Amino acid sequence: MTEYFAFNAQHAIDYIKQLIKKSEFETFQQDAELTAYEFGDGNLNLVFRISDEQNNSVILKQALPYARCVGESWPLTLDRARIEAEVLVNHGAICSKHTAAVLHYNPELALTVLEDLGHLQILRSAQIKAEQFPLLAEHVAHYLSSTGFYNSDLYLAAQDKKAKVCQFTNPELCQITEDLFFSDPYVIHERNSFPAALADNVNHIRNNTALKLAAAKLKAKFLACPQTLLHGDMHSGSIFVDQQTTKMIDPEFGFFGPVGFDIGSFMGNLLLNYCAQNARIAELAKRRQYQTHLLTCLQDCYSLFEQKWLNLITQHSNDASLANPEFANYYLQQVLQDAIGYCGAELIRRTIGLAHVADIDTIEDEQARLAVQQQTLVVGEQLMVNAPSCAHKDDFFALLISLLN
Amino acid sequence: MTEYFAFNAQHAIDYIKQLIKKSEFETFQQDAELTAYEFGDGNLNLVFRISDEQNNSVILKQALPYARCVGESWPLTLDRARIEAEVLVNHGAICSKHTAAVLHYNPELALTVLEDLGHLQILRSAQIKAEQFPLLAEHVAHYLSSTGFYNSDLYLAAQDKKAKVCQFTNPELCQITEDLFFSDPYVIHERNSFPAALADNVNHIRNNTALKLAAAKLKAKFLACPQTLLHGDMHSGSIFVDQQTTKMIDPEFGFFGPVGFDIGSFMGNLLLNYCAQNARIAELAKRRQYQTHLLTCLQDCYSLFEQKWLNLITQHSNDASLANPEFANYYLQQVLQDAIGYCGAELIRRTIGLAHVADIDTIEDEQARLAVQQQTLVVGEQLMVNAPSCAHKDDFFALLISLLN
Repeated sequence: MTEYFAFNAQHAIDYIKQLIKKSEFETFQQDAELTAYEFGDGNLNLVFRISDEQNNSVILKQALPYARCVGESWPLTLDRARIEAEVLVNHGAICSKHTAAVLHYNPELALTVLEDLGHLQILRSAQIKAEQFPLLAEHVAHYLSSTGFYNSDLYLAAQDKKAKVCQFTNPELCQITEDLFFSDPYVIHERNSFPAALADNVNHIRNNTALKLAAAKLKAKFLACPQTLLHGDMHSGSIFVDQQTTKMIDPEFGFFGPVGFDIGSFMGNLLLNYCAQNARIAELAKRRQYQTHLLTCLQDCYSLFEQKWLNLITQHSNDASLANPEFANYYLQQVLQDAIGYCGAELIRRTIGLAHVADIDTIEDEQARLAVQQQTLVVGEQLMVNAPSCAHKDDFFALLISLLN
Repeated sequence: MTEYFAFNAQHAIDYIKQLIKKSEFETFQQDAELTAYEFGDGNLNLVFRISDEQNNSVILKQALPYARCVGESWPLTLDRARIEAEVLVNHGAICSKHTAAVLHYNPELALTVLEDLGHLQILRSAQIKAEQFPLLAEHVAHYLSSTGFYNSDLYLAAQDKKAKVCQFTNPELCQITEDLFFSDPYVIHERNSFPAALADNVNHIRNNTALKLAAAKLKAKFLACPQTLLHGDMHSGSIFVDQQTTKMIDPEFGFFGPVGFDIGSFMGNLLLNYCAQNARIAELAKRRQYQTHLLTCLQDCYSLFEQKWLNLITQHSNDASLANPEFANYYLQQVLQDAIGYCGAELIRRTIGLAHVADIDTIEDEQARLAVQQQTLVVGEQLMVNAPSCAHKDDFFALLISLLN
């Protein structure tokens, strides 16, 4: 047992050297000369890249007992390092193709050594530059449907699943989502953040009774619907990509929650980028082309996600009563409606809540940025309010198209 | 630490004497002469009554590592003694008036010492004799609404609730319910038990697609909807009564599940007794009077349960977003539909599943018993299938009356 302390770059090197001596992993030769630098992930943790002279490298990520972006005034459990490592191990065992590999985990030091994905781009940065990834929809659908199904009651024995629900109980990080996602944006709260010029739109949100009901339903389900082991933070900053590759990172918000949450968050981020491009791409034809690509990506991703879930239920469910086709259709209809709702909630909370997205915040023209924010609020609101009337994914896609045109 | 062993009556006396010496409770004088006898609760455990010469008495209940009614071939976790004691403590802190008091609990020996409620009757025995309890509806409504609300997300801080969900994870006993309640009755299974003359009705049940969908939905919610800390086994054998008193016992099936489950099980048992009386009370006027009483009890209980929940949400909810009146109405509508479904499922599983009720099984006339069983199957089926179309409790009551007439 080592007592916890916060690392610097030299600690990171020494730690990796120890692991090399114990032959715990093969990235580096025994006599490798290592260098390290800290680059942070911008939010909660310390992150170091450790490399040798042949440019072999690993990532060492350490949780701090507070949120790095705020400081010691926001204490945060070190247990999130365990959650993150264990979600990656769980999801990696099911879908290694799209899950960052864990090379080593130390619970006392709250640190994880991960494969270095630095040759890839963060999806958000790439999408801000309007880059396209033809395999993204299929990859995300595959990751979410397989990790979702194999951690659900449709596959796991009830006793195993209940043990996993406790293993992945993540109250502190869930509370961040409970507050920022479902509560703050619908009331006056000091954590909210939006320009004064958006005040009328925000008031409209706060006074929309149907919307507040939708937010409460989504919150209640987030609190008490442990359907599967979620990533818990499926925004475009948690996804590494290139033309061939898609890898999920950072599941420290992982817990057992509603299946619709992750896919809804992901689609919400596609839509945030879609709206932002109205102010980013000046040339109309080019903008239309890119936005059409984004919308197709969203539709393909949801369609594949649903189809893969259905195939998995049909072929691999271990519970005969839940595998019946009528129940599978009912289950997936609920997931669709939840996903639409969570997607809408992501648009709203990223516009007026604490945590924004760079897609919008880096738009320099204030008026153009305001127009984008007004659009994301309207789209988010309409998705949340109309989610329960979408019986089929085609209803959802038709609703989306009507809102975006 | 004492290693576990199964008690006999002398062990029970010696154990209680030890507790008296340590002044752990006041039921008995230091020099009391104790006698004990085992009477069992008929199902899973050893149960002893220990008395002194002044007729002061306590109950000592010990879990066996197997189900007492079946034998060592059905191993069963001793952890159920912990669950039972901790549910009683939790519910007793909220609603001591209607919860059997725990005087002592020993986790190593899987035993609990409880107040002796032997001066009361078990509700099932009393209702078989068509006895009436004017306060029963109000008492059950009070117990279920208060223990339900104060263990829900509407009252508890999310972090506290999540800890309690893990504390009350009860996989082995839940699996019994998952199998017997939601799976077995709808398929061919050796655990099912019904007379050959009922085969056509049972086939009808097994071939009803809408019913099987309803059963799957109820099972999925039982598996993954930790709304509150349930009693988990709210049948008429778990309730002690007299004209003034109602006390719940035996919550060893307790866990965090859907609010509608307990109230639905309770109503199901009232309806089982209602149907049984068609064969039990020969005199028509007397039978009608008693059945009207039972139906009024059910309606009053549900109406009060709902009203008390609504009052608690309005007055004591700690989550502003969930306390909003639109959400409260939505939440209670879901609870209503769940309760109707679980009520119907109780009727079916008690008729053709493993565990029957004495209300029906002790009807001597075979044809009369068969007619009762046919009725409970029809009522159960119609409740389960029509639950989603009951928007209001009055819809439920109207449905019930149409089914019972």
